[in-house]
Amino acid sequence: VRTTTENAQLALLLEVASTPKPGNVDREREYDDLRFEHFLAGAVAARDGLRLAAGGEELGVAFERAIAGMSQQSGGNTQFGAILLTTPLLGAAAEGDLSPEGARSVITETTVEDTAKFYEAFEHVDVAVSDPPDDLEPLDVRRGAEAIPAIRERGLTLGDLMERSADQDGVAAEWTSGFPRTFAAAESIADDEGAVTDRAARAYLELLAEEPDEFVVTQHDRETALEVTERAAALTESEEDPRAFAEELVDRGINPGTTADIVAGALFVALERGLEV
Amino acid sequence: VRTTTENAQLALLLEVASTPKPGNVDREREYDDLRFEHFLAGAVAARDGLRLAAGGEELGVAFERAIAGMSQQSGGNTQFGAILLTTPLLGAAAEGDLSPEGARSVITETTVEDTAKFYEAFEHVDVAVSDPPDDLEPLDVRRGAEAIPAIRERGLTLGDLMERSADQDGVAAEWTSGFPRTFAAAESIADDEGAVTDRAARAYLELLAEEPDEFVVTQHDRETALEVTERAAALTESEEDPRAFAEELVDRGINPGTTADIVAGALFVALERGLEV
Repeated sequence: VRTTTENAQLALLLEVASTPKPGNVDREREYDDLRFEHFLAGAVAARDGLRLAAGGEELGVAFERAIAGMSQQSGGNTQFGAILLTTPLLGAAAEGDLSPEGARSVITETTVEDTAKFYEAFEHVDVAVSDPPDDLEPLDVRRGAEAIPAIRERGLTLGDLMERSADQDGVAAEWTSGFPRTFAAAESIADDEGAVTDRAARAYLELLAEEPDEFVVTQHDRETALEVTERAAALTESEEDPRAFAEELVDRGINPGTTADIVAGALFVALERGLEV
Repeated sequence: VRTTTENAQLALLLEVASTPKPGNVDREREYDDLRFEHFLAGAVAARDGLRLAAGGEELGVAFERAIAGMSQQSGGNTQFGAILLTTPLLGAAAEGDLSPEGARSVITETTVEDTAKFYEAFEHVDVAVSDPPDDLEPLDVRRGAEAIPAIRERGLTLGDLMERSADQDGVAAEWTSGFPRTFAAAESIADDEGAVTDRAARAYLELLAEEPDEFVVTQHDRETALEVTERAAALTESEEDPRAFAEELVDRGINPGTTADIVAGALFVALERGLEV
């Protein structure tokens, strides 16, 4: 039987191996400077941080360690969002309650120190985020550790911070609402049949068809994100092969990263609940 | 900087991700019952054993633990040979001497207890091996732990056992001769350019062109292994895309597993020597 740490690492690997996942790196599609192998290396070196989270370590400490490891490859940001989404789920598993309530409870207990470690994590890697409103400029995550004094001054816990970002960040939205899309996708993967990477690819397309991907909104605009959602919805209702759509999104540099992050979290939940590989 | 354990795990992952590797599972080709995802799960759960080897634990103990982990997936034998090949290299790295001499020295120090653990490892998974000569039937590895009394009686160290198998097992041949093909392939990967998984795929084809794969001899016959070698040699000298050959070998169920094992070991050596991913 795999440990919780092993399931978290395997979830990261299965996510990137699942194909086709239109717009994201998968085992059949990659970018010249962001390759499949970078995701493998990211998952390998994230493991020590994942282990800390699975052992009940402070969420911020575990997250920062996982990101420091993940960044030990030359592709840049491979799994920042996936690890951010999965860390509270690991905490919930450590408490023996991997459920929406368990995850909420872990997040409610976050402190200002978790926020400080979260900001430190941005020192390791460039993450694409949208500009904060003017009054929140001192809290811009891209300032990294420099923003920590402002964080402490305001007494902002990591749960608070995520709540503030929930309307423009799909991972933060999951944090703040008990991970509804993650748990639903976990069920859909568990109830599906066949190879796990095929199941995860189908779950990805369903999630993509359901809601605009906030990472696409950040990198492009809402119109593009809506177009992707509609095209994905049409594909889930047709017999058409999603591979052409996958090629097109990669060519256009449209990368629904939040949707992939949710699939990684869903795979972790499904594995913890007994999904066989 | 990645640890030795992380490099060993990453080597297993990069090996299976490298494509095309004619006849072996890679990220574009798999069998219905032996899939890419099984190799990911194998590499994830092998890590605790790899960590023991990297920490200088007895070779047999570390190997058995890695195989016990690797077997925690439903595809069967994914990386038995790759792990067997890499374990003494991990031991050599633990001694600070990852070289032919370092590996020889680790193997010279093996004991009967290492052999006993090696036999225990066969309890976890079915491995395709050839029949032993009649007088060695009591030592048939497929007897697993049952063979241990006979092992102890003969005082056979793991180094001795490998020497006896070297003429019919390509991994044992590497063990007994200071890993010449593994170290040469590591250099060829390090000197090559481009994505690591492309370099490893080229190294695989060169190795395949160089010598008949003993695993193909075991599963089919020497004639088939020779045919594969000649076809691979022709490909390395032409501009032809090896993908058609890859499809053909998978269709015919011809699986040059030993060659893939050597590539995994070579990737480990190259990573330890600073190959960037």
